[in-house]
Amino acid sequence: MQGKYRALWINENEELEVIDQTKLPFSYETKVLKTTDEVVTAITDMTIRGAGVIGSVAAFGIYVACSEVNNYSDLQKKAKLIRDSRPTAVNLMWAVDRMMDQLKKSTSLKDDALKFAIELNDQEALESVEIAKNGCDIIEKILEQKESKKFNILTHCNAGWLAVIDEGTALAPIYEAQRRGIDIHVWVDETRPRNQGASLTAWELTQSNIPHTIIADNTGGHLMQQGMVDMVITGADRVSANGDVANKIGTYLKALAANDNDVPFYVAIPASTFDFDIEDGVKDIPIETRSADEVKYMRGVDENGVVREVLITPKDSPALNYGFDVTPARLITGLITNKGVCKANLAEITKKFNS
Amino acid sequence: MQGKYRALWINENEELEVIDQTKLPFSYETKVLKTTDEVVTAITDMTIRGAGVIGSVAAFGIYVACSEVNNYSDLQKKAKLIRDSRPTAVNLMWAVDRMMDQLKKSTSLKDDALKFAIELNDQEALESVEIAKNGCDIIEKILEQKESKKFNILTHCNAGWLAVIDEGTALAPIYEAQRRGIDIHVWVDETRPRNQGASLTAWELTQSNIPHTIIADNTGGHLMQQGMVDMVITGADRVSANGDVANKIGTYLKALAANDNDVPFYVAIPASTFDFDIEDGVKDIPIETRSADEVKYMRGVDENGVVREVLITPKDSPALNYGFDVTPARLITGLITNKGVCKANLAEITKKFNS
Repeated sequence: MQGKYRALWINENEELEVIDQTKLPFSYETKVLKTTDEVVTAITDMTIRGAGVIGSVAAFGIYVACSEVNNYSDLQKKAKLIRDSRPTAVNLMWAVDRMMDQLKKSTSLKDDALKFAIELNDQEALESVEIAKNGCDIIEKILEQKESKKFNILTHCNAGWLAVIDEGTALAPIYEAQRRGIDIHVWVDETRPRNQGASLTAWELTQSNIPHTIIADNTGGHLMQQGMVDMVITGADRVSANGDVANKIGTYLKALAANDNDVPFYVAIPASTFDFDIEDGVKDIPIETRSADEVKYMRGVDENGVVREVLITPKDSPALNYGFDVTPARLITGLITNKGVCKANLAEITKKFNS
Repeated sequence: MQGKYRALWINENEELEVIDQTKLPFSYETKVLKTTDEVVTAITDMTIRGAGVIGSVAAFGIYVACSEVNNYSDLQKKAKLIRDSRPTAVNLMWAVDRMMDQLKKSTSLKDDALKFAIELNDQEALESVEIAKNGCDIIEKILEQKESKKFNILTHCNAGWLAVIDEGTALAPIYEAQRRGIDIHVWVDETRPRNQGASLTAWELTQSNIPHTIIADNTGGHLMQQGMVDMVITGADRVSANGDVANKIGTYLKALAANDNDVPFYVAIPASTFDFDIEDGVKDIPIETRSADEVKYMRGVDENGVVREVLITPKDSPALNYGFDVTPARLITGLITNKGVCKANLAEITKKFNS
């Protein structure tokens, strides 16, 4: 691993332990996930979240589930619970399917599950290192054409090491830029309604002393219009065969603004994010709706340091909470993957990743 | 007045009284503004806000200031304080200038100021009635071409009766649609960082039993992409001669999404919102930055009904808070004004409003 930090690990008791991301940035707490139910709840309630980390937790979740079953057939039922816990996350399904495929002929489910989950995790860490390099090469190229040496990146949601082992996807090139001595500054979209930017990304960047500024999600368009953004990088939860990108709700709006102002808009993903079963992402990627309370209530710390939830709307006003949107491929400058950079279109994606 | 509600009034003691909008939607409280300083503070801290209401308060603020001065020259100094309190609001400057112009030859400053402020207020109420009619005519036209009888409007920020006497600008056609029996539903953008949508617009619509749903600002693009929005209407703080629109930060992103999905995007304004001194709005309308704390802290009610401010970001992460952005005229379907609907371009605007 290249990065200093981890979102989950196997602890000294051989248990799955994760950072409780719902407590960040207010307090650093961890949770041990001892049962399949606890794994599913941790995914559903977003104790852990992020495309890659969900996959890793799902893989280790299969290992956890092994303690509750005696055979592969029973394990399949547990696996289904994990696989169905969040509909948009293709990595989740991919990780569960891969684990179950590898375990098909196992005679020692628990030992093998641990081994395969660690392998999957290590592989993801390697992918993050490649994404970091490939993404930072693009940063350097854009920087060459600028007069100023300062480089401003805008990102939406959290796709750092809290989201993907080892340094993330969208944030990995930023950590690499810091290592290469580039004078980088990050515009951090708050990312309502769950504030993954304002809480998780800002917290991550603080840990690594990377200069950043939190902005309301509404602000990015104005910044791009005023020439204050050199590049946008986001992660993705699912990319269809034609290059449409499902990512945190609001990504599409930033892509529109980038397109309107000739700002390069990149999406950083491990190759496992492609879903070749879906050809038209805008039409066919299912979009998860989440609880209206995520819009109506906000968590923060009060003046005494107590973490509280407050209601921010009229009590009886309804709210609707789509978790993701789909950005059409035509708005995407390129996909930064662990296997190199490619255009977001069917021909290039098929050639590079599905042939 | 057509509407049932008012954001400010002269009370029985001939004092200026306003609804404290910073307390909504959690509690309904009013404030009496007795001095110029109190008027300036009420504008700066957003006790009152909204393009029109700021103008009305400024006009009545001149009346308040009359009690503190003996002559026109001293009144000019007080007027300057009010005029400078918020840089983006052209109605504010317009109202102060008009009042001071009318008072130039007055021999009874206080009496005349009250009279002129009431006249200005009444005129604004009439404008709102005209905007309601003109906007609702457009709603009916769009509705004629739809199969479903349900009409979905998306609005950003608050441009109802809390913002503009008498029923607002963007919301006025919605109130009119309710009167005309149209089956209307409003998507209410939360409008971070100050949540004018989630708090004020949702509260206003609740008072009038208009069906609505609060959404994160990030959501509008997805809704438009999925055909769930029939029309966008926003207000504006300033419109340049070429039709560029300065409005609450994030308006530009919604205009981009509307344009990308062929959703009609209208801006509802009284004619006083035009600023003919500015020809290129994107380039030249000054954009106010506000306190970073508006991004970092959030106000709401806790489980005991106590209104609290909570910190929602890492304590040391900086934030940047632009209050407005400018939507280029090319993205605007039309301007709904008290003098009819016009295209957002120099020729039409000049012909209709500045010739």
